[in-house]
Amino acid sequence: MPASPIRKLTPFADKAKLDGKKVYHLNIGQPDIETPEGMINAIKGIDFKVWAYTPSEGTLSYRKKLVSYYNRAGYNINTENIIVTTGGSEAINIALMTCLDPGDEIIIPEPFYANYNGFACQADAVVKPILSYIDNGFALPPISEFEKLITPKTRGIMICSPNNPTGYLYSKEEMEALKDLILKHDLYLFADEAYREFCYDGREFTSPMHLDGIDDNVIILDTVSKRYSACGARLGCIITKNKEVWATALKFAQARLSAGMVEQIAGEAAIDTPDSYFEAVTKEYTHRRDVLVNALNKIDGVYCPNPGGAFYVCARLPIDDSDKFCQWMLESFTYNNATVMFAPATGFYSTPGAGINEVRMAYVINPDDLNAAMKCLEEGLKVYPGRVEVENGKQKEAHA
Amino acid sequence: MPASPIRKLTPFADKAKLDGKKVYHLNIGQPDIETPEGMINAIKGIDFKVWAYTPSEGTLSYRKKLVSYYNRAGYNINTENIIVTTGGSEAINIALMTCLDPGDEIIIPEPFYANYNGFACQADAVVKPILSYIDNGFALPPISEFEKLITPKTRGIMICSPNNPTGYLYSKEEMEALKDLILKHDLYLFADEAYREFCYDGREFTSPMHLDGIDDNVIILDTVSKRYSACGARLGCIITKNKEVWATALKFAQARLSAGMVEQIAGEAAIDTPDSYFEAVTKEYTHRRDVLVNALNKIDGVYCPNPGGAFYVCARLPIDDSDKFCQWMLESFTYNNATVMFAPATGFYSTPGAGINEVRMAYVINPDDLNAAMKCLEEGLKVYPGRVEVENGKQKEAHA
Repeated sequence: MPASPIRKLTPFADKAKLDGKKVYHLNIGQPDIETPEGMINAIKGIDFKVWAYTPSEGTLSYRKKLVSYYNRAGYNINTENIIVTTGGSEAINIALMTCLDPGDEIIIPEPFYANYNGFACQADAVVKPILSYIDNGFALPPISEFEKLITPKTRGIMICSPNNPTGYLYSKEEMEALKDLILKHDLYLFADEAYREFCYDGREFTSPMHLDGIDDNVIILDTVSKRYSACGARLGCIITKNKEVWATALKFAQARLSAGMVEQIAGEAAIDTPDSYFEAVTKEYTHRRDVLVNALNKIDGVYCPNPGGAFYVCARLPIDDSDKFCQWMLESFTYNNATVMFAPATGFYSTPGAGINEVRMAYVINPDDLNAAMKCLEEGLKVYPGRVEVENGKQKEAHA
Repeated sequence: MPASPIRKLTPFADKAKLDGKKVYHLNIGQPDIETPEGMINAIKGIDFKVWAYTPSEGTLSYRKKLVSYYNRAGYNINTENIIVTTGGSEAINIALMTCLDPGDEIIIPEPFYANYNGFACQADAVVKPILSYIDNGFALPPISEFEKLITPKTRGIMICSPNNPTGYLYSKEEMEALKDLILKHDLYLFADEAYREFCYDGREFTSPMHLDGIDDNVIILDTVSKRYSACGARLGCIITKNKEVWATALKFAQARLSAGMVEQIAGEAAIDTPDSYFEAVTKEYTHRRDVLVNALNKIDGVYCPNPGGAFYVCARLPIDDSDKFCQWMLESFTYNNATVMFAPATGFYSTPGAGINEVRMAYVINPDDLNAAMKCLEEGLKVYPGRVEVENGKQKEAHA
C-alpha cells in the first residue's frame, strides 16, 4: 500500500449510538422549511431530452435572473460578474484557489464556519483567526486587532454576515471600518452571504457590494441552500467586479466543466419566489429565535446573545468542556426519553481552548420542539458531572 | 487592487466569430444521444418537500444501486468502497488531493484529457507525461519507458481506458503489465473509466478492479456523464478498496457537504437502464466510428487508427500546426456554407511540439453530418496554406 496521505482536514465526529431515544437536532443547518413550490415545479417540469453540460460560468438565462435578484438588492452587477458554482462550498473553494497562493494568509473572525479550514487547506493557505466575543454578541473585533495580524503574506479577510455560527449581523459602521482596512492594506474581502435573506427586527443587511470604492477587492460567495431551503441543490455563485479574479476563477470553473443543469433551471424559478415566502420564513425564524434565546437565558448559568440574523445562536453554558458535554447529552442523558444534539463551539474556533463552554444551536426545528429541547437542556445541566458553577452572574473560567 | 493571482491553468480558446456559417462540432464530448427515459422520469417524479443535503459519501440507496451495477461488472465492491461525487471532475479532484502531496509526481500517458492538468495543479502535484504514439494506435507505452520516469516523488499513474482523446482500449495484457509496475514501485493506479460502456467490435473491457492483488493501490474515477449521456447531471464517484484513501477522500467530500440530491435520485433510476439502451448506443457509436475512420483514411495525407472504445479518434493531418489549422478552418474556410470545429491535439499533450499535426474528433453527431464534415475537411486540406506534403505514405515532419 502506498504511504498514507498526509493532508489534514477538520475531523468529523462519529455518529453516536442513540438506542432509540428521540433526539432534537439543533446541531446542523438543514432547515425544515419547505423549498419554494416554484423550484420544485421547475424540476418536475424539465423538458430536455439530453441532460447536457452547461457553460462553465453558468447558463446565461440563470445569470440574467441572478442579476435581477442582486440588482434589486443594490449590487449593480451584470452577467459578466457572476460564476455559477456547485453550491456555496465550491464558491469558497474556487475563490480561495483563485486568490491565494500556497502560504498566503487569510484573516477570519472566529468562531467561523468550520469548513473554511478545509478549503483553506486545499488552497495551501493559512487561516489567521481573530477572536470575537460572546459578551458583546460576537461583534466585529476592533480594527486594531486585525492590524496586529496583518503581515506581508496577508491576502484577504473572510467574513460571514449574518454569521454562521453566531447569527451576528455586521452593521453599516462595522462594514465601513472593514472597508477602510481592506483599502489601506489592499486586501481581498471575501464575503459569505449565505444568510443574506435572514435579517430580523427590521435590521438592515449591508453587503460589501453596497460600499463605494472597493469593487476590485470584493468577492461575494453565495448559495441558494439557505435562502430557498435548497441545501441539496448544490447551487451557488461567485460575484466579483474584479475582471482578473473573474477570469482566473473561470479557469477553475472550466476545469470542472459545469454546474448542474437541473439546478440552474430550478434556480431561475427560485428568483421568482414571491416576497410572501421570505416574509413568512423571516417571521417564523424570528419567532423561533425569540423562543430559543428566551428559554436559554432563563436557564441557570446560561447566557445567549440575541443575534440579528441567520438561524444560529452560540450560547455559553455552565460546563467544563463543550465537546464532553455534547457527547454526554447524547450518550448518557435522557429526559422524557429524549435528548438534544448540539454542535460544540470549539469546532468553530481555531484558537486552542476558545469556545470551550459554548455550543452552537440551529433553530431549524419547530417552536414546540425547541421548548422541549430547552427543557431537556435545563435538566441535563442540573446533573451534568462537569458542571462549572456560576459566580456573580458570570461563569467561572473552566480552564483558568 | 490586490496583486494578481498567479496560479496557472490550461488556457481555453476564445469563441471564434463564425458569421452565421454552419459548424460541425467535432470538438467537444457532449453526446447527442438521448438521456435514458428512466432518468428523465425520475427527475420529473421527485416527491420531496425539502431539497435537503444528502450524506457526504452519497445516499445509501444510490450507493447500493451502484454496488449492483459494479458487481455485475465483476468489481466485487460494497457501499463502503464508494464516495459519490459531483461529476467525474470532482472524483479526479478529490482523488488527487487525497493521494498526492505538493510536489508529488503522477505519470500519465499522453495525449490525455487536458483537465487532468488543472486538477494536478490544484493539488500542487506534477504531471509527468509519457508519450504514446499514433502509429501503434496509442497503445500503452513500454513499461521500460515508465521506469525511466519513476523517481522517489512518483506517487501514481493515471490511465483512461477507453481513452479520451484517442479512443484506445487497454488490453488485458497491458493492464497486467501496469499492475506489475504498480506493485513493484508501490504506486497508486488512478483509472478514469468514464467510457467503460463504450467498447466496440466485441473487445473486452479490463478494469484494474478485475486484477488480483492490487486492491489497496487502485482508485476508480467514474461518472454518469457519458454512460447515460447525462453530462449536465454532474454525478460521479470514487471507488477504492483502500480504507485509508476512502476515509481521507471522505473528509474532502465532507468539506463540500454533499453531491446533488436530484442527481442521486436520477442516478438510481439510471442503474435500471435496460441493456437494450447500451446495445443501441454501442451500435450507433460503432457505426459512426467506422464512418468517420473510413472517411478520414480516404483523404489524401490523413491517417487515423481505428480505436476500440470511447467516442473519440485522434487523426494525423498533412498540416503544419493543429492550432493554426483548427483556427483557420473556423475563421477562414467554408465549404457549402459550413466548416468543422476540431480540438487541436496539442491541448492533450504536455510535451512541447507533440501532437502538432494531430486533431481530436468526437463522433457525437449523426453519420450524415459526419460525412459532410469529412468532405469539408478534405476540401479544407486541399487549400490550407500550411499544408505539409506527404512522402512515401508518411508525413514529413512539419517542425523537423
